[in-house]
Amino acid sequence: MDQLLLTEVAPRDGLQNQPVRIATADKLDLLSRLAAAGLTRIEAASFASPRAVPQMADAEEVVAGARHLDGVALSALTMNLRGLERALACGTPQVATVVAATGQMNLRNINMTLDQATAVAMDVIGRAMQAGCGVRAYVAVAFECPFEGPVDPGIVVRLAERFAAMGVDEVVIADTIGAAGPAQVTGLLRALLSSLPAERIGMHFHDTRGFGVANAHAAIEAGIRRLDASAGGIGGCPFAPGAAGNVATEDLVLLAETSGLATGVDLHALVGAVDFAGGLLGRELGGRAMPWLRRRFASAARDGR
Amino acid sequence: MDQLLLTEVAPRDGLQNQPVRIATADKLDLLSRLAAAGLTRIEAASFASPRAVPQMADAEEVVAGARHLDGVALSALTMNLRGLERALACGTPQVATVVAATGQMNLRNINMTLDQATAVAMDVIGRAMQAGCGVRAYVAVAFECPFEGPVDPGIVVRLAERFAAMGVDEVVIADTIGAAGPAQVTGLLRALLSSLPAERIGMHFHDTRGFGVANAHAAIEAGIRRLDASAGGIGGCPFAPGAAGNVATEDLVLLAETSGLATGVDLHALVGAVDFAGGLLGRELGGRAMPWLRRRFASAARDGR
Repeated sequence: MDQLLLTEVAPRDGLQNQPVRIATADKLDLLSRLAAAGLTRIEAASFASPRAVPQMADAEEVVAGARHLDGVALSALTMNLRGLERALACGTPQVATVVAATGQMNLRNINMTLDQATAVAMDVIGRAMQAGCGVRAYVAVAFECPFEGPVDPGIVVRLAERFAAMGVDEVVIADTIGAAGPAQVTGLLRALLSSLPAERIGMHFHDTRGFGVANAHAAIEAGIRRLDASAGGIGGCPFAPGAAGNVATEDLVLLAETSGLATGVDLHALVGAVDFAGGLLGRELGGRAMPWLRRRFASAARDGR
Repeated sequence: MDQLLLTEVAPRDGLQNQPVRIATADKLDLLSRLAAAGLTRIEAASFASPRAVPQMADAEEVVAGARHLDGVALSALTMNLRGLERALACGTPQVATVVAATGQMNLRNINMTLDQATAVAMDVIGRAMQAGCGVRAYVAVAFECPFEGPVDPGIVVRLAERFAAMGVDEVVIADTIGAAGPAQVTGLLRALLSSLPAERIGMHFHDTRGFGVANAHAAIEAGIRRLDASAGGIGGCPFAPGAAGNVATEDLVLLAETSGLATGVDLHALVGAVDFAGGLLGRELGGRAMPWLRRRFASAARDGR
């Protein structure tokens, strides 16, 4: 059966903006549950400045505690050389780097031009690879930027080509604000796949408008087999009512099921991990399919299956 | 610009199972608001037995009150000859007929075999057309039946061919329980489009698993330009928490926007109509994109746009 390779990002992209501080031991418990559910690629932490992202201040402990999880390829986000030093010092096997595809997004977030931000990312990528560390290279706001609007696909393609040429494991094209529709996904992938093989490209969707599953399907149709997802759809800003996070892992596992693609994920165990995360955050979590999944497992339990 | 033809089914498929009884005047008010938002095809009522579906007991008054709405093509559901008589007597311009694609679904719902149910539908279709009335012919549970499981696409194709051969305006393929994924939509449409032109096929999705938009996109990609939708996603069983109704009209209008397809629908006015319907039902309504749409219109209002 054809495989769909999911990278679980709830522990990093999902948790980083949550207002409830999660204890390191609880993060490790969540990571174990996600791994036990069959998620074998997990972005577990971020080596951002602890002042900027206090929720990720324990990145070293999280990586140290989780990097020997059986069968799991662990990664962590690094924004710059300082982050990379921290990641390497605690034995992070794969790091993720980020460059936003627009000038304004880089200026407002890290006070660099696009060229400066690209140079920093390439420096981090080069040093990580020299140290024998794997790399996922994110291209953020690849479809639409909150400051500049629609993004020129040519810029995304050129950034992706440069990172791919350095030999990164995966270039991850991120719809950071969840503004793409499936037609945009198909269009950008047509451009990307004319110069890069599908095996080197991952897609990272947010579900702000409820288009996450449709976008994932469009990517699969284009030949992509690497998708990021967040258990329970954790992410986004918890203070903005209705602000959705990443596309939910359970939604993509169910999509894969209906598409004849194997993920290796046990949905029942995944729902348990989502409920555990919900307990930590003090609210009910779940992707678009969760109400239906809960009924499915409840009726299976009633039937003694 | 390429057109996406939406048939609005909230007044029928959306309201028919709601526990709150809606007054005829309020239904007519809702119909006016939907029409004013640019929805030009509306399934407004059902001529089902008033005992079986009390919410639709005022079908005559609804059709009589709405059939002269400017620019609107009005239709109403008829389950049998008695329903057709009622529909014709009050001047319904187009009726919808239904046959479920499986034996068990017909047996349990109307105590007929599939052949008997097909014969009744063909009789209704023939008489409606003789009377100069338009017809939409639904094939229900076209993907999966709650009693029989996955449905043989060959049966759906044969039913669709028979109805199309009679000259109906549109054969509507319905995922009644919301069990299809986009791969199933693509597969069934490949089979259907080998014998029927895309212009004669409509698709009717429910959003039970959050796959409504992905399925609609798969249908559009296959060449389909007729989709049913329900404003606010009204429908389903209001007593089952999380049971979703039809795919929401606002979600499909937004999908069309991102796909370069024209619907003629003003999203801001549509959100107003959804909120009016929410007031009638006493709960907040809205499709998957609604939180984002509310923010879009709120910030547009702040900016004085």
